[in-house]
Amino acid sequence: MSLLVVGSMAFDSIRSPFGEVEKVVGGSATYFSLAASYLAPVRLVSVVGTDFPAHTIRMLSARSIDTRGLKVADGETFRWKGYYEYDLNTAHTVETELNVFRDFAPVLPEEYRDTPYVFLGNIDPRIQMDMLSQVRNPKLVALDTMNYWIENSPGPLREAIGKADIVIFNESELREISGEYNLVKAARAVMSWGPTRVVIKRGEYGVLHLSDGAMFAAPAYPLETIFDPTGAGDSFAGGFMGYLASRNGSDPGEMDYRLATMFGSAIASFTVEAFSTERLENLSPGDIASRVDAFRALTEFRV
Amino acid sequence: MSLLVVGSMAFDSIRSPFGEVEKVVGGSATYFSLAASYLAPVRLVSVVGTDFPAHTIRMLSARSIDTRGLKVADGETFRWKGYYEYDLNTAHTVETELNVFRDFAPVLPEEYRDTPYVFLGNIDPRIQMDMLSQVRNPKLVALDTMNYWIENSPGPLREAIGKADIVIFNESELREISGEYNLVKAARAVMSWGPTRVVIKRGEYGVLHLSDGAMFAAPAYPLETIFDPTGAGDSFAGGFMGYLASRNGSDPGEMDYRLATMFGSAIASFTVEAFSTERLENLSPGDIASRVDAFRALTEFRV
Repeated sequence: MSLLVVGSMAFDSIRSPFGEVEKVVGGSATYFSLAASYLAPVRLVSVVGTDFPAHTIRMLSARSIDTRGLKVADGETFRWKGYYEYDLNTAHTVETELNVFRDFAPVLPEEYRDTPYVFLGNIDPRIQMDMLSQVRNPKLVALDTMNYWIENSPGPLREAIGKADIVIFNESELREISGEYNLVKAARAVMSWGPTRVVIKRGEYGVLHLSDGAMFAAPAYPLETIFDPTGAGDSFAGGFMGYLASRNGSDPGEMDYRLATMFGSAIASFTVEAFSTERLENLSPGDIASRVDAFRALTEFRV
Repeated sequence: MSLLVVGSMAFDSIRSPFGEVEKVVGGSATYFSLAASYLAPVRLVSVVGTDFPAHTIRMLSARSIDTRGLKVADGETFRWKGYYEYDLNTAHTVETELNVFRDFAPVLPEEYRDTPYVFLGNIDPRIQMDMLSQVRNPKLVALDTMNYWIENSPGPLREAIGKADIVIFNESELREISGEYNLVKAARAVMSWGPTRVVIKRGEYGVLHLSDGAMFAAPAYPLETIFDPTGAGDSFAGGFMGYLASRNGSDPGEMDYRLATMFGSAIASFTVEAFSTERLENLSPGDIASRVDAFRALTEFRV
């Protein structure tokens, strides 16, 4: 089944202890779409400027990503400049230029309005809600955000969260939004606003997944070469939602969410092996299946 | 089979966001022995002052912990004073008083010299080596250390590590001792000095376990109430080594090390639920088995 994503597309300039790149393709919707496209057809809603490479858009279209919802606006593409120290879990932002993203007010193409699976990427929660109001009877809605919106638009954000089934946050976002340091209590607080599942991204420590009835913890894959963690969280979300959308349409159960988590983790583990979307553009289904299997070998124990 | 531990016994004064205690029983050998005693007979080598409570020593003796190697020396017991912020992974030391620990030069009781399983707790690596030289043909030797010895006795420490089969370090210790930030590379560096396994303690993120042929990642149990992380690492080590010693004497394989990791994690998850050794003194075998089973439920997924 199809999967709708709304989020940013960007040019990133990134420095890590392992190298430096200037003005490479990035953005939450880009990583999400690429990751999800290995598993399900994706419908992309975003905006870029006229400076965005046409061949990248063609590359996305060639991979079961519907780009009719991608607007090319007069002006420059959104830019992010940042760096990482050895602690790759923390991105340090040097500069953000919103550019065409400043006036982003997406209108959902009619063909997208019946999409069953929806991912509201990290954008203004008012846009997240506006997008969602244009979808007819979505089956499953997941939402991401960032500290900026938690601090600057807490009201709209809380309203948007109330409309989501699943939130996908990192640890500091969950703690900040709930005002609760303990992750179990923080997840419970967020679930009291509406969502039934909280997926906590912990960078190199993996993922913790809480719902009313269960907890699931998955490690990240211990890699020898991590070049650039940019996009890991969005790739995770793309693999996670992509797996759920790839199923037969029955309501996912706990084990489906768990396997979705492992697909997300597997794809994210490839993303960080190179700068930008390089590695993510060149995976095979076999690569992903092998990594999921490697996760099983990594975590298995018998009582 | 029996398990020998050499390490500190102490009075701790601890402040955490959840309370404060003064001069409670602590120390690496105390936590280790208590944790291991649920699984195997323990032989304890340590030193306390005349101020150490006799009833605590009786409590240890009553739990299959042989205290003939525990010396009561003239003077005061080792003391540690520290605190934790909300990030319970980091202990901040306010004060350390070595007291009777300053002249600790243990002589192994003759009855201990054939102990097959040996844990060299975090003490001067010269004492670790001296202890080890007094054991006849140990079957399995594990070693812990801390940043102080890495910085002040790198030579003797490296020599001691060379004589161990397993090292049990936290992330920062492993990084500092190897000079390598990436944990996979760091573990490989340490294994090139002799040990065949590196167990990395990651606090609330669990444990990563590397050997030449395999990697194993286990989460910590997501708890709603963590009062005091002091002793969690030593309790983990105690449960880990205790499980290995509890087996039939055949060489442990990968799955045995994994289950040992889960027993260690289970027992450590109880330790942090109360200050000092309180919770650790009052577990039942059923409590531990249930927690190991809860870990299985926490991590299980099916491809």
